Amino acid sequence: MSTVVRSFEPPTTQGKTAIVSTDLKLYQSNGSPNSRRVRIYLAERGICASTIPVDLGAKEQFSDAYAAINPRRVVPTLVLGDGTAIGEVPAIWRYLEEAYPDRPLIGNTPKEKALVTMWERRIELEGFNPTMEAVRNAAAGLKGRAIAGPHDYEQIPALVERGKQRVKDFYADFNARLTDTPFIAGHYFSVADITGVVTVDFATKALGLPIPEDHVALKRWYELVSARPSIAA
Amino acid sequence: MSTVVRSFEPPTTQGKTAIVSTDLKLYQSNGSPNSRRVRIYLAERGICASTIPVDLGAKEQFSDAYAAINPRRVVPTLVLGDGTAIGEVPAIWRYLEEAYPDRPLIGNTPKEKALVTMWERRIELEGFNPTMEAVRNAAAGLKGRAIAGPHDYEQIPALVERGKQRVKDFYADFNARLTDTPFIAGHYFSVADITGVVTVDFATKALGLPIPEDHVALKRWYELVSARPSIAA
Repeated sequence: MSTVVRSFEPPTTQGKTAIVSTDLKLYQSNGSPNSRRVRIYLAERGICASTIPVDLGAKEQFSDAYAAINPRRVVPTLVLGDGTAIGEVPAIWRYLEEAYPDRPLIGNTPKEKALVTMWERRIELEGFNPTMEAVRNAAAGLKGRAIAGPHDYEQIPALVERGKQRVKDFYADFNARLTDTPFIAGHYFSVADITGVVTVDFATKALGLPIPEDHVALKRWYELVSARPSIAA
Repeated sequence: MSTVVRSFEPPTTQGKTAIVSTDLKLYQSNGSPNSRRVRIYLAERGICASTIPVDLGAKEQFSDAYAAINPRRVVPTLVLGDGTAIGEVPAIWRYLEEAYPDRPLIGNTPKEKALVTMWERRIELEGFNPTMEAVRNAAAGLKGRAIAGPHDYEQIPALVERGKQRVKDFYADFNARLTDTPFIAGHYFSVADITGVVTVDFATKALGLPIPEDHVALKRWYELVSARPSIAA
């Protein structure tokens, strides 16, 4: 992690690299963008959890064993030492933030926590969700599975083009935002940046939509964030 | 508020009815389901904020004055005494939960907070969002405005029927869930119940989809929750 990146972080997170061992289990898939949001978070915080692969290609998420852990049949799920199963990325982050309050990635004060929550959600609604929607409505392997979860819904081809247009609008809007701030939520790296980099990487890979060359501020942010070791998780 | 309802609540919230006056301003619309999620929360917690109407019928959310407060041009927005503007319902709740930690509606422990976050998000993804999607893609007044926010996207008629089917699936899934627990997240009223009741009321009114008569557990929950004075907010 370079000095340049560190210099934007709040004082409480500087220079700490302690690894926290836990009895947490993360059920996840290497190819799943939602799983990656949690993997990067864990790496960034130095929290060690056992990862248990769920083979989406073999439809393992629909097995009785996994449905008992996550009735929505999606990855990831964090399982605590007492067996409590927590699904949904923001809920998993919330648990880790409350249980291991050192080095927060959702802010320190009530105001910071609210603003990080807002910006992370905007990245999800405006960038991450349209990317996933375009991919799920296009992929031949997801016929009849346009929405993740326990129910089957047919693909709607019009959502593919609309999703791609929304990703382009997202890039333009957040290029403007990042002209004003080094990171998405302000002057420190946060979960909003995690969802942002996962979105850009998946839109690039799965939709052929990298950041346009003329979006200088967005590219500067992407290069800054991508240099963090956690991003390889 | 009846004794029956109170009996499910955690000890820390029992018998407290203090009203907290603040210098908060809530920009909102009476007809907006997202605004209602915040109004119910404030009433439930006894937190007083000034409400400032944003006239969606007159497209006031697109005015320069409102766009300066909420660049996404959606309601509600909570504005703090120092001028900080917080958009997005979960972010507004997060601020209020952190700034006024008495009588939490998102749980007391890290585990409770994570599980309430998970269940509230599931209600939103599986019930609230499909309801809004079906309404926005059908309404004549929302032609070219299928998605709330700064950009115009055309309506996709196939999303109307799919949305209605998803609401029916949501009702069936949460009827099963509420066979096991009095409230959505467990044995206490939480923000998951707020999003739940707002979803049912809006699906009933705007889509003609009330809870089916044979969904006994879901109806029992709805009647229990609707009896709370906050729900009239």
